[in-house]
Amino acid sequence: YALVVAYDDGGGASSIIRDVSGSNMIGGVIIASFDEDEELRQTLASTDRPHVIMNRVLPGDSHCIAIDTRAAALTGVRHLVKLGHTRIGHLAGRLGRFNGEMRREGWAEALTEAGLPVDEALIVEAGYDPARVSDAVDRLLAQGVTAIHAATLLTGAAAIARLHALGCQVPGDISLVTMHDDLLARVVYPEVTTVALPTAMMGQVAVKRLLRQIEGGEAETGAVLLAPDALIVRKSAGPPKGA
Amino acid sequence: YALVVAYDDGGGASSIIRDVSGSNMIGGVIIASFDEDEELRQTLASTDRPHVIMNRVLPGDSHCIAIDTRAAALTGVRHLVKLGHTRIGHLAGRLGRFNGEMRREGWAEALTEAGLPVDEALIVEAGYDPARVSDAVDRLLAQGVTAIHAATLLTGAAAIARLHALGCQVPGDISLVTMHDDLLARVVYPEVTTVALPTAMMGQVAVKRLLRQIEGGEAETGAVLLAPDALIVRKSAGPPKGA
Repeated sequence: YALVVAYDDGGGASSIIRDVSGSNMIGGVIIASFDEDEELRQTLASTDRPHVIMNRVLPGDSHCIAIDTRAAALTGVRHLVKLGHTRIGHLAGRLGRFNGEMRREGWAEALTEAGLPVDEALIVEAGYDPARVSDAVDRLLAQGVTAIHAATLLTGAAAIARLHALGCQVPGDISLVTMHDDLLARVVYPEVTTVALPTAMMGQVAVKRLLRQIEGGEAETGAVLLAPDALIVRKSAGPPKGA
Repeated sequence: YALVVAYDDGGGASSIIRDVSGSNMIGGVIIASFDEDEELRQTLASTDRPHVIMNRVLPGDSHCIAIDTRAAALTGVRHLVKLGHTRIGHLAGRLGRFNGEMRREGWAEALTEAGLPVDEALIVEAGYDPARVSDAVDRLLAQGVTAIHAATLLTGAAAIARLHALGCQVPGDISLVTMHDDLLARVVYPEVTTVALPTAMMGQVAVKRLLRQIEGGEAETGAVLLAPDALIVRKSAGPPKGA
């Protein structure tokens, strides 16, 4: 098989999927799109090519593969609870979408199992945009948090930069954990405590499921959620001040 | 045209180029490979497909497109000289290869035009590997540098992390400039002063030159070096201590 890559930076995924699916050269499609659920469902209904949806679960579609980021958030926030934090802010990605909601749920679950209140005022949305992080961090600090759970590595790094700029010691004054692990986590000071995500495996599983459909005989259906990898303890999280 | 992507993580580019070029489905090849010059020349001589080499200049090949990182390094080091630094270390990528040598030349040229000595002891190679940066930074500090010119953004970020870990203020004690600009430059503390590189344009020019060959009539031959974009002054560089 040869790989054909089509890229759209927002809103045009449906027409790409239709074009690609209409070509006789194409055996199947792997979709990594954040189109609205209903739009994506209609697009897929209009084609009959083998497909796999990656990095999200589309309710009602039987070919989805995603990472259990709810579990990743749970692991990260549990680590903060164990260190003694009781007021833990959630620097969210885009709420209302699959990955954003999964992470919020994991954060809330860790608080609930520790008997801590789930205070909506401790959730601030910064999307995936570092430019929005400074304001988000300031709002969390105004709520008296001693630790921040950042839904993405990039916004987590930006949050640490903001804390430095405010003169806050990390982790002396404020701790931070995030999820996902790549080089960025090790070029930030201090190095970032994070939960690794099996992103490469997600790609491999997506390709395998697609090939099984193309080559006949799709045994496996239904959404698959890959468990996160281990918590990687580095330097960005410690006990709360005075603990 | 459809895009076919083949990836090799070291040493296998020649066989990929041969395989791809032997297929009747392939109109042309864009090569972004760091194979040795002589090996790449032999591979290309054994195929007759239209091709463009991107991100390096292969001497003797008439279809190369790269960025003038010599000029980018010159611009960055000039900025440090203008701030008053006279002992400026070069945190090099891989010396002996096209991009590494271009950057070293730009560093040396800026020193020479300012009447400063070009001291080989101020060059330390860390490749493109953050894990090697701590040792490299320590060696530059032992040479008494007051500023570091980092050949890559990722190693520049890692150098700043090492300086923090050593208790050095950036830029109060040690300044740093690098080249290339992406989100990473703005999630490091302090934000990184850098020279932007026209990487997207390099890709566009590569595709245009390839299409011109495929569609007949290659007017343009010879290596093209794209000028870097502007210096972006952020917070990681200031006057030397006591200046």
